[in-house]
Amino acid sequence: MAQAAYYEGDRKIRLGACEPVPPGAGEVQLKISHCGICGTDLHIFHGAMDARVKMPLVMGHEMSATVQRLGEGVEDFELGDEVVVMPLAPCDDCPACAAEHSHICHNLNFLGIDTPGAFQSYWTVPAYTLHRIPPNLSLKHAALIEPLAVACHDVRLANVRPGDHAVVLGGGPIGMLVALVAREAGADVIVSEINPYRVELASNLGFEAINPSETDLIELVMRRTKGKGADIVFEVSGSQAGADIMTELLRTRGLAVVVAIFAQKPQIDLFRFFWRELRLQGVRVYESQDFADAIALAAAGALPLDELITDIRPLSGLRSGFEDMEKGGRAMKILLEI
Amino acid sequence: MAQAAYYEGDRKIRLGACEPVPPGAGEVQLKISHCGICGTDLHIFHGAMDARVKMPLVMGHEMSATVQRLGEGVEDFELGDEVVVMPLAPCDDCPACAAEHSHICHNLNFLGIDTPGAFQSYWTVPAYTLHRIPPNLSLKHAALIEPLAVACHDVRLANVRPGDHAVVLGGGPIGMLVALVAREAGADVIVSEINPYRVELASNLGFEAINPSETDLIELVMRRTKGKGADIVFEVSGSQAGADIMTELLRTRGLAVVVAIFAQKPQIDLFRFFWRELRLQGVRVYESQDFADAIALAAAGALPLDELITDIRPLSGLRSGFEDMEKGGRAMKILLEI
Repeated sequence: MAQAAYYEGDRKIRLGACEPVPPGAGEVQLKISHCGICGTDLHIFHGAMDARVKMPLVMGHEMSATVQRLGEGVEDFELGDEVVVMPLAPCDDCPACAAEHSHICHNLNFLGIDTPGAFQSYWTVPAYTLHRIPPNLSLKHAALIEPLAVACHDVRLANVRPGDHAVVLGGGPIGMLVALVAREAGADVIVSEINPYRVELASNLGFEAINPSETDLIELVMRRTKGKGADIVFEVSGSQAGADIMTELLRTRGLAVVVAIFAQKPQIDLFRFFWRELRLQGVRVYESQDFADAIALAAAGALPLDELITDIRPLSGLRSGFEDMEKGGRAMKILLEI
Repeated sequence: MAQAAYYEGDRKIRLGACEPVPPGAGEVQLKISHCGICGTDLHIFHGAMDARVKMPLVMGHEMSATVQRLGEGVEDFELGDEVVVMPLAPCDDCPACAAEHSHICHNLNFLGIDTPGAFQSYWTVPAYTLHRIPPNLSLKHAALIEPLAVACHDVRLANVRPGDHAVVLGGGPIGMLVALVAREAGADVIVSEINPYRVELASNLGFEAINPSETDLIELVMRRTKGKGADIVFEVSGSQAGADIMTELLRTRGLAVVVAIFAQKPQIDLFRFFWRELRLQGVRVYESQDFADAIALAAAGALPLDELITDIRPLSGLRSGFEDMEKGGRAMKILLEI
């Protein structure tokens, strides 16, 4: 029987039956294989986005699937194709879309937030959102493509070059993926994180990983760079402390990349931006190229994706997944096998 | 008799005799023609930089001069040459210098702040700081080359393109020069300024100039750009209000250029940087190319430089110049004729 996990507000998740949606013209119906739990899903679970989402909501956008039914006019896919979804449906009508920045469309429909997502047996989506995955990429690993595409986008926009010194502030799932992709691009990466489990994991993945409350990060970076400072700092912590240290760590004309979602406006040392001619770049989601890059990188076996998957649970484990994420501790990426 | 204006702390300016310094090897002695009063000079006069400057200090760095004496080994200049000075003496030994960012050298000696400047009859400087001015550029106008080079640097680093929509927040001397240079680069420029005299001056120079306490700047920019937002915002006000509105005005992936010196850390909407993938660039002083660009632009007669010169006074008018600048009101650029 087709099932879905429904968010009903006030931290309620209800597992229930759902009717598969027949694919309309240009749409495809997918049979979901795996779907990861994102920090944004946790945010929704906490009620922080109740004003935006329509309840009951089926969340979930970090997924892998096989093609189950094709709608009229869909020619690029066949039944049984293994795919992932780039969950962005732009309006094609706003200034961002006109400027070919449709991934940050002013009226963006984010599948799994603004419309139903992948925490269900069958999901019907526009065919243009699909990326086929190659045979050497498992459906389990493919569920990490969406967050990996975020990291590919961030590293691409940061223009990371071989030999660059990069610092990642915040070693959660996205920070860790950014660190891995930056290292693949040739950067020397330091990861700064306060959760001891995550510091240890980053160390095990071969990064110089430190807890900034125990180690003087500025002193470390200056030592590693002979007093020059880091070329790039990825701010993934969303904290005032991260916003403070990022300007201290950068070399002249270095780049701060704002990956995190800052709920409050932090104080920023604009004098330092002036004094050192620093640069800052906000980055959000991904473009089609980043999905292609993420798939190629994952399929090449270049990344230790298994190390990032803390646990795999059935759809009924969504609520306990949220609770484990809230505890922090040892949770990195939790997948649901649907 | 050779004279100098000495800053002696506590708002004291003393006019007194000075002994011209014989040029050493690689140095040139200049006979100063004109020297403008900079906002930084006013800052020093207020005592805000007493910890940095050595008193008594001869300030002044926005100058024009003729070559009076040549030190040993100086071959590129002749007596009587009309010149301006790029007042930066880098250490050639720090990471910024190694990265060819010597204009923001970590140990920069800024002539006229860290060592004596041009508010005196004769000034001895390294020959490498000189830029020759062409016959069709007057010594009076040449005294504006230094601040104009700031504007050329800012517009160059902002990569202003024909048709760009630019907003300049703050219409003082630097803001006005930035607006003029951005317009020369083909941008459509709006100037936002709260001083009515400066709003009127910007209007007279052909800009759409508004007082943001009277006109809804966001609404205006959205109207001019059909809802897209500005391509570039130059923040020259150094205020929290400027820092707030700059993120509101920009289009997706638009650029905020931090020209102003922020004495306090403002709150910055990093969420908006993320959401719209905005960019920010700090800019400081100038490079040699910017001096060359400024000289070419001024010599071509492309800029209404006379409109920016409020007044020309003798060296003894330095103190009254500071006082007029403090009053705000009708002061734009005050020159001293030495």
